[in-house]
Amino acid sequence: MSRLVKKRSKKIGLAPGTLVHLGTPRPGSTAVELIEYGADHLEQRKLDSLLQCSLPKPAPSVTWINVEGVSQVEVLQHFGECFKIHPLVLEDILATDQRPKAEDYGEYLYVVLKMLRLNEASGQLQAEQMSIVLGENFLISFQEGLEGDVFEPVRLRLKNDKGRLRQTGPDYLLHALLDLIVDNYFLILEKIAERMETLEDELIANPDEGTVQAIYQMKREMLFLHKAVWPLREVVGRLQRRESPLILEENIIYLRDLYDHTVQVVDTMETLRDMLSGMLDIYLTSVSNRLNQVMKVLTIIATIFMPLSFIVGLYGMNFKHMPELEWRYGYPAVLIFMAVVVAGMLYYFRKKRWF
Amino acid sequence: MSRLVKKRSKKIGLAPGTLVHLGTPRPGSTAVELIEYGADHLEQRKLDSLLQCSLPKPAPSVTWINVEGVSQVEVLQHFGECFKIHPLVLEDILATDQRPKAEDYGEYLYVVLKMLRLNEASGQLQAEQMSIVLGENFLISFQEGLEGDVFEPVRLRLKNDKGRLRQTGPDYLLHALLDLIVDNYFLILEKIAERMETLEDELIANPDEGTVQAIYQMKREMLFLHKAVWPLREVVGRLQRRESPLILEENIIYLRDLYDHTVQVVDTMETLRDMLSGMLDIYLTSVSNRLNQVMKVLTIIATIFMPLSFIVGLYGMNFKHMPELEWRYGYPAVLIFMAVVVAGMLYYFRKKRWF
Amino acid sequence: MSRLVKKRSKKIGLAPGTLVHLGTPRPGSTAVELIEYGADHLEQRKLDSLLQCSLPKPAPSVTWINVEGVSQVEVLQHFGECFKIHPLVLEDILATDQRPKAEDYGEYLYVVLKMLRLNEASGQLQAEQMSIVLGENFLISFQEGLEGDVFEPVRLRLKNDKGRLRQTGPDYLLHALLDLIVDNYFLILEKIAERMETLEDELIANPDEGTVQAIYQMKREMLFLHKAVWPLREVVGRLQRRESPLILEENIIYLRDLYDHTVQVVDTMETLRDMLSGMLDIYLTSVSNRLNQVMKVLTIIATIFMPLSFIVGLYGMNFKHMPELEWRYGYPAVLIFMAVVVAGMLYYFRKKRWF
Amino acid sequence: MSRLVKKRSKKIGLAPGTLVHLGTPRPGSTAVELIEYGADHLEQRKLDSLLQCSLPKPAPSVTWINVEGVSQVEVLQHFGECFKIHPLVLEDILATDQRPKAEDYGEYLYVVLKMLRLNEASGQLQAEQMSIVLGENFLISFQEGLEGDVFEPVRLRLKNDKGRLRQTGPDYLLHALLDLIVDNYFLILEKIAERMETLEDELIANPDEGTVQAIYQMKREMLFLHKAVWPLREVVGRLQRRESPLILEENIIYLRDLYDHTVQVVDTMETLRDMLSGMLDIYLTSVSNRLNQVMKVLTIIATIFMPLSFIVGLYGMNFKHMPELEWRYGYPAVLIFMAVVVAGMLYYFRKKRWF
Amino acid sequence: MSRLVKKRSKKIGLAPGTLVHLGTPRPGSTAVELIEYGADHLEQRKLDSLLQCSLPKPAPSVTWINVEGVSQVEVLQHFGECFKIHPLVLEDILATDQRPKAEDYGEYLYVVLKMLRLNEASGQLQAEQMSIVLGENFLISFQEGLEGDVFEPVRLRLKNDKGRLRQTGPDYLLHALLDLIVDNYFLILEKIAERMETLEDELIANPDEGTVQAIYQMKREMLFLHKAVWPLREVVGRLQRRESPLILEENIIYLRDLYDHTVQVVDTMETLRDMLSGMLDIYLTSVSNRLNQVMKVLTIIATIFMPLSFIVGLYGMNFKHMPELEWRYGYPAVLIFMAVVVAGMLYYFRKKRWF
Repeated sequence: MSRLVKKRSKKIGLAPGTLVHLGTPRPGSTAVELIEYGADHLEQRKLDSLLQCSLPKPAPSVTWINVEGVSQVEVLQHFGECFKIHPLVLEDILATDQRPKAEDYGEYLYVVLKMLRLNEASGQLQAEQMSIVLGENFLISFQEGLEGDVFEPVRLRLKNDKGRLRQTGPDYLLHALLDLIVDNYFLILEKIAERMETLEDELIANPDEGTVQAIYQMKREMLFLHKAVWPLREVVGRLQRRESPLILEENIIYLRDLYDHTVQVVDTMETLRDMLSGMLDIYLTSVSNRLNQVMKVLTIIATIFMPLSFIVGLYGMNFKHMPELEWRYGYPAVLIFMAVVVAGMLYYFRKKRWF
Repeated sequence: MSRLVKKRSKKIGLAPGTLVHLGTPRPGSTAVELIEYGADHLEQRKLDSLLQCSLPKPAPSVTWINVEGVSQVEVLQHFGECFKIHPLVLEDILATDQRPKAEDYGEYLYVVLKMLRLNEASGQLQAEQMSIVLGENFLISFQEGLEGDVFEPVRLRLKNDKGRLRQTGPDYLLHALLDLIVDNYFLILEKIAERMETLEDELIANPDEGTVQAIYQMKREMLFLHKAVWPLREVVGRLQRRESPLILEENIIYLRDLYDHTVQVVDTMETLRDMLSGMLDIYLTSVSNRLNQVMKVLTIIATIFMPLSFIVGLYGMNFKHMPELEWRYGYPAVLIFMAVVVAGMLYYFRKKRWF
Repeated sequence: MSRLVKKRSKKIGLAPGTLVHLGTPRPGSTAVELIEYGADHLEQRKLDSLLQCSLPKPAPSVTWINVEGVSQVEVLQHFGECFKIHPLVLEDILATDQRPKAEDYGEYLYVVLKMLRLNEASGQLQAEQMSIVLGENFLISFQEGLEGDVFEPVRLRLKNDKGRLRQTGPDYLLHALLDLIVDNYFLILEKIAERMETLEDELIANPDEGTVQAIYQMKREMLFLHKAVWPLREVVGRLQRRESPLILEENIIYLRDLYDHTVQVVDTMETLRDMLSGMLDIYLTSVSNRLNQVMKVLTIIATIFMPLSFIVGLYGMNFKHMPELEWRYGYPAVLIFMAVVVAGMLYYFRKKRWF
Repeated sequence: MSRLVKKRSKKIGLAPGTLVHLGTPRPGSTAVELIEYGADHLEQRKLDSLLQCSLPKPAPSVTWINVEGVSQVEVLQHFGECFKIHPLVLEDILATDQRPKAEDYGEYLYVVLKMLRLNEASGQLQAEQMSIVLGENFLISFQEGLEGDVFEPVRLRLKNDKGRLRQTGPDYLLHALLDLIVDNYFLILEKIAERMETLEDELIANPDEGTVQAIYQMKREMLFLHKAVWPLREVVGRLQRRESPLILEENIIYLRDLYDHTVQVVDTMETLRDMLSGMLDIYLTSVSNRLNQVMKVLTIIATIFMPLSFIVGLYGMNFKHMPELEWRYGYPAVLIFMAVVVAGMLYYFRKKRWF
Repeated sequence: MSRLVKKRSKKIGLAPGTLVHLGTPRPGSTAVELIEYGADHLEQRKLDSLLQCSLPKPAPSVTWINVEGVSQVEVLQHFGECFKIHPLVLEDILATDQRPKAEDYGEYLYVVLKMLRLNEASGQLQAEQMSIVLGENFLISFQEGLEGDVFEPVRLRLKNDKGRLRQTGPDYLLHALLDLIVDNYFLILEKIAERMETLEDELIANPDEGTVQAIYQMKREMLFLHKAVWPLREVVGRLQRRESPLILEENIIYLRDLYDHTVQVVDTMETLRDMLSGMLDIYLTSVSNRLNQVMKVLTIIATIFMPLSFIVGLYGMNFKHMPELEWRYGYPAVLIFMAVVVAGMLYYFRKKRWF
């Protein structure tokens, strides 16, 4: 549950723009990578720290600074002043429980969203906050932790492919990064769908309480996913409506494409949720069916043996004058009578389709 | 479930516009058919391949190119360049998990939707993606597979009927194709409704777990249908609002008609969904009723035989001094007493309406 | 169910505007009635057939042509050409599964809606499609069948009352017809409410499976009603917003009144639906209560007689050395002991409020 | 139920504006009260009948005519002509099943809403329709019955307080009347909330079927309340947006205040509804818990006594050769053995937390 | 429940603007604190009473008057006249059941919202109404009670930090106060989440009726929270859209930030609600699972012992001629036979996975 409600209490009473890191501190210090590129040049280097205030080259050169690990408050503060980023943005970068959103600060655009990871072992989703500041000729991406990212394909495309990515502005780089993150959502949905399939087979073959708890855990993961993905649709929708001049006219078409993907993610997520509900219904129906079955077995047993027990009890009475007890064939007669009773009842149950 | 979430992971990290085929590869290669027609001429021929870059004749002649099987990436790429179709469109044509949508690319309009087929044997719905590119004097339709289509009636109307279809632009052809696809949805809904009727009769006559699983499967098919049909309403709605000049004023009325049909499909679908829910409720009510019935039988049996067993047990005790045992008519007296007890209880149950 | 999904498959592949009759063919041929009226004249006559192309007199005279039975395709076609009605409208008149709608064709307005009838015997709702074409100086109403209509009061008002109905245009006649149809919905809702009341009394007095099936059937009728009534609100809403010049400014007030009635119908329908759900909940609660009751009876019986049976079994054992069996008052002592046990258990159950 | 669907069938086929009284005829005839007031004068008198056509004095004098009992059709008709009230408005005044609404007729404004009363004995809500016609210098209020109203405080304020109510136009009087009616809703909600509290205590202490039926009846009352209150929000919202010049700019602020109150009423109503649902859930949970309890008791009893009965039955067999029967301490041994069995089972149940 | 519906009945019939205190009277009298500050001065003093009509210094000096305890009607009235606050505002300040709202009175802005407190012992939420009047150069905050507030951090920032808070207008002070209140909501959500976690662990380890009642109580608290928080989103949304000139352009960015926080609060609240529903579902599932378990135990016991009891009863019959009774090894044979029966049934149950 702690994943769903983060501790904000540290921040109570502080002035807005005061930098406080929220969330589990990730190990290690900050790693900074800088890539400067244009149609015909590309330079990539690791920065020692954010304290170097290296301003980006003028357009059309594009500078991409990728910061991993945002827990060091002072470093970020210095960096923010350097790039004239508003303290409120820096605050949001550090407070890693942001709802995905896009905000236009005139000189730059601030986009925040979630990068998801599915822990294969526990089946839990893990989210890492990703903040992106898009300026006229630069893009800075802040990742919450150091555990690597999903951006390797973009780095490769920047190096090898001299296509559109190298020839247009940083807004296209923004598209490339968002696209990778959204594609990653598809990957996660695929894995969840696979697990759901396994669960469903189990549900039909041999449902037990473990199955139903797995369904509930999955339902909770969907809640977590929903919280991360749902607002993203609105974010990309706003970018694609080109409310900021930082988004070039010519790249709108790509953002529209990205928007379609986001809508598809949301759609698929809703479908998976509907299916989970369906699975729970199936489980409950089968539980109530089995209860019925058990009750029928009990009733059949009781209905057969209670009359028999009565009959044998009857002839176990110690009355002096019970003529049947004296009969030569009293015992076999009673046995035969009881067999008839049993046969009659079995016939009755069969007719009632009880077994 | 795999039908609901397609594998998109192949595409992660690729530049937008990179052509990758998503979905099950359909057998066979690509089949291309070209129909050029106007008010007084019509030519129909099979093209060997998409590699022939045969540009359409100028208006008012209309060229309809129908491509079946879109899995060959290179061919499609060549074809796309030929007609100046944007790589993002080509990408969408290949990625066969598109959500129905209509996009205006200025020079042409891109419409994507689903052609459905109901597998009679398994009762499963199967979807084939249909992409349509509508230009000023041409229309290209891309079908996902080679398994035939539902367009035969349009071909016949083109050949035989010299009416409106031959005299107006390709937007009317677009209407004709969409109309057929939507009519096909009605056909599928009819079949589903019939099957639902059968299920319902079963539900009343003789419900078992098979019935309820059939209901759940049908619910899932409705989910699948919903995903294909719901966005279509918006697509046709946009076309009918004539947001693109490629749609002629005079044909709007037909698109409005088509829009009405789409709304009707959605309406009918919702009605069927409501009925499915109702059927599940009936099933659950009848299960709980039957449980009640079974419990009553058990209770009646126990209530009748437990006292009787107690009585016969009583006179089976071996006390030395039990005066009743010595009585002349003790045995028949006990028998009569037990008969009275049974009659009394039966009367009580009858009064309580237990049987 | 067939009432909810009509066979549209006949129409697949036909050009739009091709006339095909959908729905059950109603008996008999077409009956046509023509009423021409103005402030000071009124002429009413039966037409032999629709083939007479009698154009209406010029305004301010109003011509009302009422056509009953629309299954004869050729006749309708001729008639349509005569009045210059668009083939798509004729198609909709014949396809009797239209969703209520209002369409503006410039020269005339096309309104389609449902006339409902409650079959008293089976409790089923039956719908008849009513199409109305409103021109500048004429109104044509097409009824699906010949089984009579609800318009008699309008005919009487036309004949006897020389008020507003005779002095204004055909749009007021449209209002009068729609008003009658909507008033008829109130009548049907009243009858449904009455039947619901009966059902409810049954539910409290003596609920059985018949009651619950009656509730489900009523729920289905509400679904049917909903499909017919819900879109009507939007239809009348559009008329009342006066989107067409065929609606006179001075009559808007009456359409607004009609709109209020439609909203009230929808409101009442929703209330009835809520009450039906409530009734189902009551049924389920009472079923589960009765199950509890039955279980308690069973438990009380078992709890009383099992110990007793054990005791009498105990003294039915055949051990050589069982001192109690020899006692003088062993038997009455056991009887008294058992009475005490029973009394104790009854006291316990009473305290637990089990009966 | 009759309270939810009123008989409209009387009105079928009548021309709009034909006056027919709907609803239960209230006893007695019509009572009319007239109050003429201005900043420095106030005259109050009872009118003998509505037939006196006393037109209001010119502004700034304000005339308030309060009519109780609207079932006399002819009188109302005369009155309506006198004040030039549209027949449709008179029709609505008589048809006492109106949905709350506000209509602008240019010269005057027509507002209709419900005055509620909670019958303390039966717990049923009763509604009385209140129609208000607001002109430039007059306000006429029509009450459905003669059973008194909630307006006494306004009369007192008019007489005693020479504040705003005496100095501004009739729109402020309208506000005062509406305010009283809405305040009355709060009173009713308070009473319902109190009753709910009582029910809730009962639900926890000692729930029975009476409790659940009280909950369902309360749910139905909420349905009734919802129907009366929900549309009122929209009505006051329209008044407060000042769509009519009859509402003075300076009084808008008071209508805004009234609107806030209406929103609060709706809010509170929704909260009470949510709580009712919660109470039903608690009831169902406790029923299913009790079923569990009963089943456990039964199972414990059966599990303890069935083995014991078997053992005593065993030694009740009549085999010639049963060595145990001959043993000196056979009987006490069996008793001890059975005690051990019982102790073992009780220990097992305790461990399983069955009691 | 009394917390959800406050007694408004006191106010019925009073003229709008009549001051009546609603809600529990809080102990003690009114405490007033006045802080006057600018970029370079700050004066803080306690006022003896509200009767001193000390008007604020002109801008850019800002005056913050914080009033704790609003139950003294006369004092407030005097104060209101002094600051020319509209009587309707004063009325709302006293009626402590306001729905959060923001109203623009031209000269000043009136904001009302709820300050929440979580009673650690009872787990109940308590709300205190907070009214804020924002003028051009002053801000007055009215708290319902004297129990302290959450504003201490703002006072400290005013004293120590000479930043933005001291240099800009009272609208930024408004932001600071709202921000604290919203931060406080996060704190409460955190605590609720923690308690939910505890409950959840209990639910899995050892669910009983106490657990389910705790869940229902928490559900009710969420209802209460929802009522306080949901309208706040709209309030802050309106402030941030800068509908009043009292909000400076330069501070909009901070209100936007606050709006984000409010959205996050609402989001988190919805997530917690979803989780509560999930927990109830888990409880109900586990109850029905346990019922199944109990039924199985009962059925196994009955199925094993009923046949055995029948067999021993059989050989307890007193027939003269029962050959088995005479056999030498009759008794051990029966014992062995019964052991076989038990083994068979256990095998059957094991195969059916009943234990």
